[in-house]
Amino acid sequence: MEKNSPETEHPVKAFGWAARDTSGVLSPFIFSRRAAGDNDVMFRVLYCGICHSDLHSIKNEWGFSTYPLVPGHEIVGVVTEVGSKVKKFKVGDRVGVGGLVGSCHSCDNCINNLESYCPTYVLTYGATYYDGTTTYGGYSDIMVASEHFVVRMPDNLPLDAAAPLLCAGITVYSPLKYFGLDKPGVHVGVVGLGGLGHVAVKFAKAFGAKVTVISTSPNKKDEAIQRLGADSFLVSHDPDQMQAAMGTMDGIIDTVSAFHPLQPLLGLVKTNGKLIMVGAPDKPLELPVFSIIMGRKMIAGSGGGGMKEMQEMIDFAAEHNITADIEVIPMDYVNTAMERLVKADVRYRFVIDIANTLKAAKN
Amino acid sequence: MEKNSPETEHPVKAFGWAARDTSGVLSPFIFSRRAAGDNDVMFRVLYCGICHSDLHSIKNEWGFSTYPLVPGHEIVGVVTEVGSKVKKFKVGDRVGVGGLVGSCHSCDNCINNLESYCPTYVLTYGATYYDGTTTYGGYSDIMVASEHFVVRMPDNLPLDAAAPLLCAGITVYSPLKYFGLDKPGVHVGVVGLGGLGHVAVKFAKAFGAKVTVISTSPNKKDEAIQRLGADSFLVSHDPDQMQAAMGTMDGIIDTVSAFHPLQPLLGLVKTNGKLIMVGAPDKPLELPVFSIIMGRKMIAGSGGGGMKEMQEMIDFAAEHNITADIEVIPMDYVNTAMERLVKADVRYRFVIDIANTLKAAKN
Repeated sequence: MEKNSPETEHPVKAFGWAARDTSGVLSPFIFSRRAAGDNDVMFRVLYCGICHSDLHSIKNEWGFSTYPLVPGHEIVGVVTEVGSKVKKFKVGDRVGVGGLVGSCHSCDNCINNLESYCPTYVLTYGATYYDGTTTYGGYSDIMVASEHFVVRMPDNLPLDAAAPLLCAGITVYSPLKYFGLDKPGVHVGVVGLGGLGHVAVKFAKAFGAKVTVISTSPNKKDEAIQRLGADSFLVSHDPDQMQAAMGTMDGIIDTVSAFHPLQPLLGLVKTNGKLIMVGAPDKPLELPVFSIIMGRKMIAGSGGGGMKEMQEMIDFAAEHNITADIEVIPMDYVNTAMERLVKADVRYRFVIDIANTLKAAKN
Repeated sequence: MEKNSPETEHPVKAFGWAARDTSGVLSPFIFSRRAAGDNDVMFRVLYCGICHSDLHSIKNEWGFSTYPLVPGHEIVGVVTEVGSKVKKFKVGDRVGVGGLVGSCHSCDNCINNLESYCPTYVLTYGATYYDGTTTYGGYSDIMVASEHFVVRMPDNLPLDAAAPLLCAGITVYSPLKYFGLDKPGVHVGVVGLGGLGHVAVKFAKAFGAKVTVISTSPNKKDEAIQRLGADSFLVSHDPDQMQAAMGTMDGIIDTVSAFHPLQPLLGLVKTNGKLIMVGAPDKPLELPVFSIIMGRKMIAGSGGGGMKEMQEMIDFAAEHNITADIEVIPMDYVNTAMERLVKADVRYRFVIDIANTLKAAKN
């Protein structure tokens, strides 16, 4: 066995499921993790959410995947060991790790608690860590991370349904806060009712906003309003509905990563209104410049959030009983889940029951 | 003669130059203006700047021109008559009118001094005024406008070189203020060194910002730095220069209305950086979504400014001796000037000497 094989490069034995090539098919994978260093927290993984990024990554659709690749960055579990300098956590604590496990701690972004914009951040999986080894995600039995990138999961949050908050949650919570869409009385549009969108509705409602869901699927109206609590619903290809809502919104969170026209959405926002993109299409969209000039409107992007804000988001979710709507699946269902995710056939997030099903899959 | 002909529909005889069709050729035109109403200011036009919008309008390139069309919305002159309710102006005052002569005064935008975003504003030329007649611009001997849309020109501002501030000036001043690029120490990029760009450099420098001009023309470097006072200059198609400046700017004012790529410009701004579009291409640009997500960047538009801000801008310009760099031309040179404007062959703004040359052209 090679010296640097995933199985032996670190002292702690680990087991998970990995993609081996661009087919994206996941299968059992034996690897290793580092021992808990002075500032590290080690935890037994209980649940891990399936993010749409996992799907892109296992198929290398963004072009920077390396194999074997263990996905998963909505990871929750219970602490089994802490390093000597760890201050915030002790054995037995309920914790979580999201999209990041490292950043430089010295750039302007890190100093301003914006680790997700650090130019040298380390992603939770498929990236190279400071010791030169590859990072592996949460489709695995144990996790080790620097204390700085671990969040505390409040006791009243169910860990399975809270796991998706660590990516989907922060991705929508952060722009709602930063762009001032977190105030009672503001009118927020949410485009796309999927993993991100359904959590955006819940956070925006908890902030006291009026929320309108904008979707291509008229059949999502009932669940948007009755189940998720949205105030209204617009079918994006219905010109009469769209016309009637022109200029009524303070901002829109656009979660759609497929190509779609922005002009109708810009029409929905008021003067000084904000269209915030959190889904990343692989091709450029069309920017209708006249539409932003005529109302001093902006189109902005937002990518995750810093660790301080991550803990704030989790605490806010606990206080307001916000979790994701999930479908819990066993580990060996993951490839089927990925196929269903391609078709958006899930309401609204798959979460893998790692603790109860990963070992079974191993044996 | 028809009852509603431009020559007789109002009691006050007026004379200007108008385009008659999409050829855009301007020629002498006899028309009329309303008598000064209770809230109106009438003034003798001394100078009128030639804005790029005039060029688009006379050729109907935006599709909503009507003929005959008298362009001009950078209009300065001396008051000859005021209505009984006019409070701010008296005969002999130096005044100006920019892009707007009317708005509803009751919508949210008007109430917040954002008349340029009022959905029913009335443009200074080529629009329908409240009395049902067409508005005519400043390529003419006299002007009448409601007091609300008239600004005072401070004594120390030369009227010819100050005229372009009424459109070019407010167009760049307003976004510099609104988007927080008006503070000492911020680093502002200015894309395109034309009528708008050269004034943007002057205002940004007066605010205390560090200013970098970004241009396709290396031969503009000397004048950008030595004549206009920019701190540095980037040739946009030089990858080494652009790479070295990555992530250094707080915001960019993009004055270019031709199709151009936004990704290199987004690369120049820091996390949370702002790319502000004030030039309006007639086709959509490409929006690289990943580039805005990765640094929480925004692309925003800005169109003019309200009347309160217009006066503030003019007063600021007077205080800091900011005017446009102009080439004063006689009225009968206007068609040649338009041809040169197509080729950007002017540094940086044509201003028509109405008072001294319009009558001559008439006779």
